[in-house]
Amino acid sequence: MTDSRPLIMVSNDDGVHAPGLRHLIDSVKEFGDVIAVAPDAPRSGQASAITVDTPLRITEHDDIDGAKVYSVNGTPVDCVKLGLHAIMPRKPDLMLSGVNHGSNSGNSVIYSGTMGVAMEACMVGVPAVGFSLLHHSIAADFTHTTPYIIDIVRAVLQKGLPADVCLNVNIPAKCVPLGIKVVRAARGYWTEEYKEYSDPAGRPFYMLTGHFHNEEPDNDATDEYWLARKYVSVVPVRPDQTDTAAISTVREILCL
Amino acid sequence: MTDSRPLIMVSNDDGVHAPGLRHLIDSVKEFGDVIAVAPDAPRSGQASAITVDTPLRITEHDDIDGAKVYSVNGTPVDCVKLGLHAIMPRKPDLMLSGVNHGSNSGNSVIYSGTMGVAMEACMVGVPAVGFSLLHHSIAADFTHTTPYIIDIVRAVLQKGLPADVCLNVNIPAKCVPLGIKVVRAARGYWTEEYKEYSDPAGRPFYMLTGHFHNEEPDNDATDEYWLARKYVSVVPVRPDQTDTAAISTVREILCL
Repeated sequence: MTDSRPLIMVSNDDGVHAPGLRHLIDSVKEFGDVIAVAPDAPRSGQASAITVDTPLRITEHDDIDGAKVYSVNGTPVDCVKLGLHAIMPRKPDLMLSGVNHGSNSGNSVIYSGTMGVAMEACMVGVPAVGFSLLHHSIAADFTHTTPYIIDIVRAVLQKGLPADVCLNVNIPAKCVPLGIKVVRAARGYWTEEYKEYSDPAGRPFYMLTGHFHNEEPDNDATDEYWLARKYVSVVPVRPDQTDTAAISTVREILCL
Repeated sequence: MTDSRPLIMVSNDDGVHAPGLRHLIDSVKEFGDVIAVAPDAPRSGQASAITVDTPLRITEHDDIDGAKVYSVNGTPVDCVKLGLHAIMPRKPDLMLSGVNHGSNSGNSVIYSGTMGVAMEACMVGVPAVGFSLLHHSIAADFTHTTPYIIDIVRAVLQKGLPADVCLNVNIPAKCVPLGIKVVRAARGYWTEEYKEYSDPAGRPFYMLTGHFHNEEPDNDATDEYWLARKYVSVVPVRPDQTDTAAISTVREILCL
């Protein structure tokens, strides 16, 4: 490993054994030296969760396509933090996350471990991109995602990203995309979120389910609109959630 | 319980037995009917994490100051989602979270289960406020927080909040605050984040630690500035993390 090639850190939330991680490494290995630090098991829906008060351990795995591969017994963000602290030989030039088995469009960003990874890197000044495929299957076909991953990674390595912004890339499944659109996340919410069961003792329990209700399906400024039309969506995402435009209104509400 | 009084849902990330939850219920019970749905155990640092593929159960506890109290064996956001789905008799008029034992200022919002609760409610149209005390102790004194909680809750119940915005309120510890400031989150990052140990077999493990490095300690537009000067900080927080201002720049970077 030399300092002359870009150093690319890779993680995900589906775990170190996910095919999407392998595909991402394979897609970007030409651009630099790749080191993967991923959760030891699937950790979907972990957002920016961090592990407190519990020991974290690092395990080394077999290389993937020449990339060093490590796992951490924690969340996606733990992988970024501990990877930067104890594994990476220097601050990486790029952080990539995914390819996630499943969508992270609409308001799913807020629950997404894939985007938790990208936002964590962004907050410490590492350009970061999260990739997601709109297919949950462990056996999903990632082949058609490669040209888009390559184009986006090449551009970000060459030109960087705006300060304090990372990218959320979603890619349609089972088709060659028609193109790529930079848009905002569609407004919406999840509905019918739990299926109710009864255990052998007659006690109820609940399993998460439901679907995203898009409040603006006809708005071509949104990711959901273009994903439904077989385009790749790219949403600039800002880890800092302060709504500065609301400050004066909130002052009025609080009579300040 | 009648529909004429406001219905207030309460949760937290320190768990159903946390004194901060009890204090919050006690502080706001005069404003309406209160129902608490909180994690069955401490879940700090869980952000907007959700539990997938695991059964969730609801347990009823003794009332607190007349409020019905339930726990869920999941994350703070699970409590909001499942509480709205299976416990609350109707959509609440207000969601309150906390009072957190510990700060959620600066960029800690992104890791905060306290604010995960508020953002989840905000996304389904329920006005929401997260309260945090700048003291981690389970035995922290919350007495001086009451007037600020009451003032903010009264104002939000009377006037509502801007659409798609919730509030992140941090309160200094061990002092009567000098006032209240509506500001933005200070820019910064966490440093020296792990302490390294060696287990009895000689294998390393890591525990999360570190401190927030404030990049703008002299900026009076930020929460950290005023908290350090014994003021309560209120930051408007937006669950949608799209940076719409960056869309055109990202299009240029991707040659679109």
